Amino acid sequence: MLIVIAPDSFKECLTSSEVAESIARGITRVAPDAEIRKIPMADGGEGTVEALVAATGGQIHEVDTLDPLMRPIKAIYGVLGNGKIAVIEMAEASGLALVEPEKRSPLKTSTYGTGLMIKHVLDKGYKKIILGIGGSATNDGGAGMAQALGFRLFDGEGIKIGQGGENLASLAGIDGSLVDPRLSELKISVACDVTNPLYGPYGASAIYGPQKGANPQMVAQLDAGLRHYAKIIKKDLNKDVSDIPGSGAAGGLGAGLLAFTNATLIPGFQIISDLTNLEESIANSDLVFTAEGKIDHQTKFGKTPAGVAKLARKYSKPLIALAGVVGSGTDDLHQLGISAIFSIANGPISIEESLVNAASLLEKKAGQVMRLYLASGKFGR
Amino acid sequence: MLIVIAPDSFKECLTSSEVAESIARGITRVAPDAEIRKIPMADGGEGTVEALVAATGGQIHEVDTLDPLMRPIKAIYGVLGNGKIAVIEMAEASGLALVEPEKRSPLKTSTYGTGLMIKHVLDKGYKKIILGIGGSATNDGGAGMAQALGFRLFDGEGIKIGQGGENLASLAGIDGSLVDPRLSELKISVACDVTNPLYGPYGASAIYGPQKGANPQMVAQLDAGLRHYAKIIKKDLNKDVSDIPGSGAAGGLGAGLLAFTNATLIPGFQIISDLTNLEESIANSDLVFTAEGKIDHQTKFGKTPAGVAKLARKYSKPLIALAGVVGSGTDDLHQLGISAIFSIANGPISIEESLVNAASLLEKKAGQVMRLYLASGKFGR
Repeated sequence: MLIVIAPDSFKECLTSSEVAESIARGITRVAPDAEIRKIPMADGGEGTVEALVAATGGQIHEVDTLDPLMRPIKAIYGVLGNGKIAVIEMAEASGLALVEPEKRSPLKTSTYGTGLMIKHVLDKGYKKIILGIGGSATNDGGAGMAQALGFRLFDGEGIKIGQGGENLASLAGIDGSLVDPRLSELKISVACDVTNPLYGPYGASAIYGPQKGANPQMVAQLDAGLRHYAKIIKKDLNKDVSDIPGSGAAGGLGAGLLAFTNATLIPGFQIISDLTNLEESIANSDLVFTAEGKIDHQTKFGKTPAGVAKLARKYSKPLIALAGVVGSGTDDLHQLGISAIFSIANGPISIEESLVNAASLLEKKAGQVMRLYLASGKFGR
Repeated sequence: MLIVIAPDSFKECLTSSEVAESIARGITRVAPDAEIRKIPMADGGEGTVEALVAATGGQIHEVDTLDPLMRPIKAIYGVLGNGKIAVIEMAEASGLALVEPEKRSPLKTSTYGTGLMIKHVLDKGYKKIILGIGGSATNDGGAGMAQALGFRLFDGEGIKIGQGGENLASLAGIDGSLVDPRLSELKISVACDVTNPLYGPYGASAIYGPQKGANPQMVAQLDAGLRHYAKIIKKDLNKDVSDIPGSGAAGGLGAGLLAFTNATLIPGFQIISDLTNLEESIANSDLVFTAEGKIDHQTKFGKTPAGVAKLARKYSKPLIALAGVVGSGTDDLHQLGISAIFSIANGPISIEESLVNAASLLEKKAGQVMRLYLASGKFGR
């Protein structure tokens, strides 16, 4: 019997690896002979490096870089088990969590640090990067990243522009003549689940600017900056990034990656499931578990459980979803491919108890589900 | 597919019939073609009349009687679907809940009202009674009941003694010559789950007296009264009720029933399961549900889920237990025959929410369990 465990993280308490471990312990207590394949999932956001490293038996490395305000920091990135693919979360260098709340301003914040991380793995000889771009503090269209990679972004007087979204308006030209030629051979798979265009009413500044510290006036300034930036990219790099779905991801870093690097925007779930052979594992399994902190009417639009469900349905495998909270409107999920959904709660408990005890509650619930599964099969229908 | 639902009540919120209905709704939503047999269980305590009437398609009747302090009240009793067996809960006439807290004293309270109810169903022509004896306010050894049935209990001067445990000490003799002769033909099955003797350190007064309002001095007086009462019963009725397990049930009503009527003490679960053909239903089922408000390490010593588990194990049927609260130490229950245990909670909720929403939570959880059961069977092992 092969059981595949492909959970998301429980945002406030457990990484997806920890969730998978907990479920595995519960299964093993009940079915010690079952073969278990743990495939912790991620969506390109926080936890992607850890999940992919765990799923492939890879390694974590540390690198010196700069934070969104150009202050030196240490960041981590991963190398997959095959030793050939690096995994970077842009939030490690350019994430909102790195900036003190009172200093948050997408006029100032830069993706320069993310560019340094890309440069670092390029220098290490990797030919492929998985780049997660959730949680950014920036709205610079990836201009900072481009500069870190050696592109010269200059103003009307030929002077290189400064960092932050506020300087895009003065951009007059881009010179890539001095860029490391290996960059064009580096394939970057960008885990991107948003479809926002670069600018306009659904663009990076309007939709995500406010949560990064922009007031309405700043949003207008940033949006105009990105619009101008796209024009210069078109003029000097001959690439039109203005209207590509996802170009507005991470404050326009999506557009920057498309303009300056050999990047493809791919839904995070697809990247992770491809790298971990999730589909093949599910095809060969007898039973599949997934999990997410909360499962409700929005889950069908979401990533991990919905993605796992489609694969389980494709191969007609029973799929059990476990969640800290099971909200309303989950009936559609059964259509999608989730056989049954169980909360980890064992009775009336507080949110705090649920978070603190999530690992053991998950283990217990997985065990009970396994008992029911075995009893149903054993006594047969 | 036949599914048997044999739950206990959820003490603070749902009768066992309501629990069974909720589970049935959840199953039917998922498996509309499943044949469902609802067998609400009871242990002889509160809810026994309702459960048995519901399980057998019987009827509820009302009767005039007297409460523990001899005040007129209306009480209900049931008649099973076969029309031949009456079901009485002694708590309807002699229950602690009928006495205002400040008036609770087992020196004064009497089982006279229970005797009147027995007399009533005797007069109606029934030849068999199921008598639940949980929740009593009394410690009179069933002396009041005996008087209501026509026994003359008199003191040293030949004057009949008054009601309440305090008068047993003056009992000098018992005269049954004027008792309705049909009483000896009335079979009374007493649903009794306790094994306390009539008196002594584990007797009715010592163990249950305090919760009925007796202080230590009163406990001693009541215990001496029951000891004396047993002697007079031995002398005049030639029955030794002093040392029979369960004779101390319901303030000694167990002993009184054995002494004055044609009664047998039987574990409540056995009575109810016999009357409802629970064993036969389980033997013919594909899947069994049970439920109780709380399932934990004490459940194995308990009644409904443990009893249902033994039957499910006997016939190798998968048994799912649902509970408001799943406590610790439930591993033994799987040995006993419970395949899997699920709480009805859908995430962190308060006790109040759990009680208020118990019916819909039960319905949802039963549906999810059913989904998993069907998925496990369908995709097979």
